[in-house]
Amino acid sequence: MKHVAIALLGCGTVGKGIVDLLEKNADLIEEQLDTKITIKRILIRNLAKYERMDLPKSIALTTEFSDIINDDDIEIVVEVMGSADFAKECIEACFKKGKSVVSANKDVIADYGIPLLKMSQEHNVDFQFEASVAGGIPIIRPMYSSLNSNRIDRIIGILNGTTNYILSNMTERGLSYEDVLQEAQDKGYAEADPTNDVSGYDAARKIAILATLGFHSAVTFRDVAVEGIERITQEDISHAEEMGYAVKLLAIATQSDDGISLSVHPAFIPKQHPLANVSGAYNAIYVRGNGVGDVMFYGQGAGAFPTASAVLSDVMNVILHTNLTITGKRGYVWHQVPLVDPSHIEAPYYLRIIVDNAPGVLSSIAGIFAENGISIRSLIQKDETKEVAEIVLLIDSSADGLVRDALQRMTGLSCVRRIANAIRVIEI
Amino acid sequence: MKHVAIALLGCGTVGKGIVDLLEKNADLIEEQLDTKITIKRILIRNLAKYERMDLPKSIALTTEFSDIINDDDIEIVVEVMGSADFAKECIEACFKKGKSVVSANKDVIADYGIPLLKMSQEHNVDFQFEASVAGGIPIIRPMYSSLNSNRIDRIIGILNGTTNYILSNMTERGLSYEDVLQEAQDKGYAEADPTNDVSGYDAARKIAILATLGFHSAVTFRDVAVEGIERITQEDISHAEEMGYAVKLLAIATQSDDGISLSVHPAFIPKQHPLANVSGAYNAIYVRGNGVGDVMFYGQGAGAFPTASAVLSDVMNVILHTNLTITGKRGYVWHQVPLVDPSHIEAPYYLRIIVDNAPGVLSSIAGIFAENGISIRSLIQKDETKEVAEIVLLIDSSADGLVRDALQRMTGLSCVRRIANAIRVIEI
Ligand SMILES: NC(=O)c1ccc[n+]([C@@H]2O[C@H](COP(=O)([O-])OP(=O)(O)OC[C@H]3O[C@@H](n4cnc5c(N)ncnc54)[C@H](OP(=O)(O)O)[C@@H]3O)[C@@H](O)[C@H]2O)c1
Ligand SMILES: NC(=O)c1ccc[n+]([C@@H]2O[C@H](COP(=O)([O-])OP(=O)(O)OC[C@H]3O[C@@H](n4cnc5c(N)ncnc54)[C@H](OP(=O)(O)O)[C@@H]3O)[C@@H](O)[C@H]2O)c1
Repeated sequence: MKHVAIALLGCGTVGKGIVDLLEKNADLIEEQLDTKITIKRILIRNLAKYERMDLPKSIALTTEFSDIINDDDIEIVVEVMGSADFAKECIEACFKKGKSVVSANKDVIADYGIPLLKMSQEHNVDFQFEASVAGGIPIIRPMYSSLNSNRIDRIIGILNGTTNYILSNMTERGLSYEDVLQEAQDKGYAEADPTNDVSGYDAARKIAILATLGFHSAVTFRDVAVEGIERITQEDISHAEEMGYAVKLLAIATQSDDGISLSVHPAFIPKQHPLANVSGAYNAIYVRGNGVGDVMFYGQGAGAFPTASAVLSDVMNVILHTNLTITGKRGYVWHQVPLVDPSHIEAPYYLRIIVDNAPGVLSSIAGIFAENGISIRSLIQKDETKEVAEIVLLIDSSADGLVRDALQRMTGLSCVRRIANAIRVIEI
Repeated sequence: MKHVAIALLGCGTVGKGIVDLLEKNADLIEEQLDTKITIKRILIRNLAKYERMDLPKSIALTTEFSDIINDDDIEIVVEVMGSADFAKECIEACFKKGKSVVSANKDVIADYGIPLLKMSQEHNVDFQFEASVAGGIPIIRPMYSSLNSNRIDRIIGILNGTTNYILSNMTERGLSYEDVLQEAQDKGYAEADPTNDVSGYDAARKIAILATLGFHSAVTFRDVAVEGIERITQEDISHAEEMGYAVKLLAIATQSDDGISLSVHPAFIPKQHPLANVSGAYNAIYVRGNGVGDVMFYGQGAGAFPTASAVLSDVMNVILHTNLTITGKRGYVWHQVPLVDPSHIEAPYYLRIIVDNAPGVLSSIAGIFAENGISIRSLIQKDETKEVAEIVLLIDSSADGLVRDALQRMTGLSCVRRIANAIRVIEI
């Protein structure tokens, strides 16, 4: 049996998961590859912390990356640290030394995926990152090796477990945004600083990676128009429920003759749609190809073992390539495709507007919509108090720019107290 | 740009879909491979029929397989005819001539998958069959190249579109089994002879293929315990709904320390489970791995373009392998694993029993369950007429053999008119 030595950079949630899953499944993994895998070294910062951990004695812990990069035994380096700049430096150093890299680091890949892939090819090594999007769900490899006979028209993902957990619990248990977030933090589901998740940036990184591969296009996460879930209230959730929708944070990439559009935003989605039923910490990716039609991939988007499952399947792939002597031989095709101006993207919208409870209010609001060519599909006025009323509207598909403009002008009306929310309706 | 000539055996729904999808997506497919693909010849039986079809003039139609097998230009043969014996002969002949084969033929693969894979390796050619299970849904390649770091514990599939269409429409529109079947036949969704679908044999073939790959085990479709949907009535569907379940035809493969069990049968599944929401002609495969947890793959399990999408991705894979000179180099691992006796498999059951509306009936029935160590979870007695009553029961998880035995003995009771149905409840 052949033998491959690997190193891990990082031994947190994912790193420890890799150590444990490899130990658990060693036999079946090695049998498939006819190759024994040894984790020889692990890079961490705080030695004492990991010496207390229950790691196999055969693994050498180090705080010096040079111990890994200069060890010619190590053929594959698994980067599961998480920072951006240092991780990128390490990955590049590995390529230069002829070591293949497997990474779970969406931050690095959403920013530098294409340059890193190119560099890996120049150095004839593999670079794989299945775990960087949707944890354990196989999506990166299926996208390029199973859906590659299709022109991918659209990718819609529920890609962030924290926000999906918050929205699911607001819906199912009627709790407020703040209460669920607090609970998620207490239980360790959400970070102490949840900004990256709730503001949509985490999902933006992942949809950028998927669009890069699915559309064969050079995009980065800076091309994504991002909106988070911070403004979603229990009122919005209840209105959605009444109208037959679920509220989800969706990451959406579309490709048409006009170009590519990339966005992350909360959306109303029909309750009977498969994506509406993805709840809790689960993730899903819904892809439309021009041959296959709609396919969905569903599973756990995070966690030690699910993420380790994806990382180890990448490691297995790299070893298969080595055994077949085709390391670094994968070809990629990228095009420069124009981005569609987000203000031109059309969708129906749900709008919630708080107004004075006075005659003439509705006609002023309707007037502004009419001026912007926006037609109202349905309108419910709810009396909140004697003085204040809540207007809930569904408008027909309209360009985002026109909707924003109309709402902006409405805030200038003396009878309008505030625009409580404007949420796109995804009708698929 | 390199060039590969391929041939199709068959030009029906799938074959024509391949011709059309390849034409539609030629640029993006060829760009990824740096290789031009030409369909050079197509084998059919009835020349006149296909000469009337709108096929590109560059394709040579033939009724002689020898025209294809003796054409040294042709590197890849795509078998989309559908019969069993002739297709198998053709595939073997291709291997012997050094031609790789892509097939969508579940009948051949469920029966001879492993011998054919072995033979392809002996002849250093590829044999791929993504389209043989669940049409366009990527499942075969993800199973062996993305979930391969896991021990797969369980595979549950909705793998037959016709039966899922029938059950969905019985549920959503309250129609009888016979009426929906008739409608499906009229619309061309169901075959004139629907036996293969409604009796569960089609799903059995597909779950055998998935279990072979997922469990690395040498099983065939003859190892599957099969039960169809013919006995499901509107009463069963309504009772399921009331109790919070959907009725689905499930193909289930499990692997435990005792061995492998393979079955196809109708089942009650909780309404909030993702599989319960797979309706119409859609398919889904729900896989549990010991690392990844539960993942689901969902999409169209049939149709010209979805199936062609899977076939063409296989063709692309074969070409990639040729370009990398690794054709036929994939290793497989198979084990002989014992099959669990189906009568030992435990599940809760829903039972519907038609009895005389007389005192003492319930106690006789309950007595038989007690003797077989079966506990009753809930029981509803419905009066149908003055003379006849319907008893609907849920029993706790019990071995299939014990349940069958109890039901058998009940039919011996003078007060029991008939056992209307016994359906397993899947609690996941
Ligand atoms: N957690 C998930 O479920 C999940 C899912 C998908 C992808 N990912 C990605 O996987 C990566 C790792 O995530 P994680 O949850 O495992 O993170 P984590 O629990 O915070 O662990 C990070 C590990 O990396 C080490 N590390 C960080 N910076 C380092 C540096 N500069 N030098 C040396 N060691 C360093 C840490 O060591 P010290 O303790 O000594 O600082 C720790 O062992 C991230 O990119 C994340 O986005 C995570
Ligand atoms: N239809 C789907 O959605 C779907 C999905 C997944 C997998 N599949 C599988 O794909 C295969 C093809 O299905 P299909 O729906 O395309 O079948 P189909 O519409 O019945 O077409 C079969 C084709 O094969 C030709 N053929 C059959 N036997 C032949 C023989 N002995 N010699 C020469 N030509 C022969 C027929 O030619 P003539 O017309 O001249 O007889 C016809 O062109 C089957 O294995 C099926 O299980 C189908």
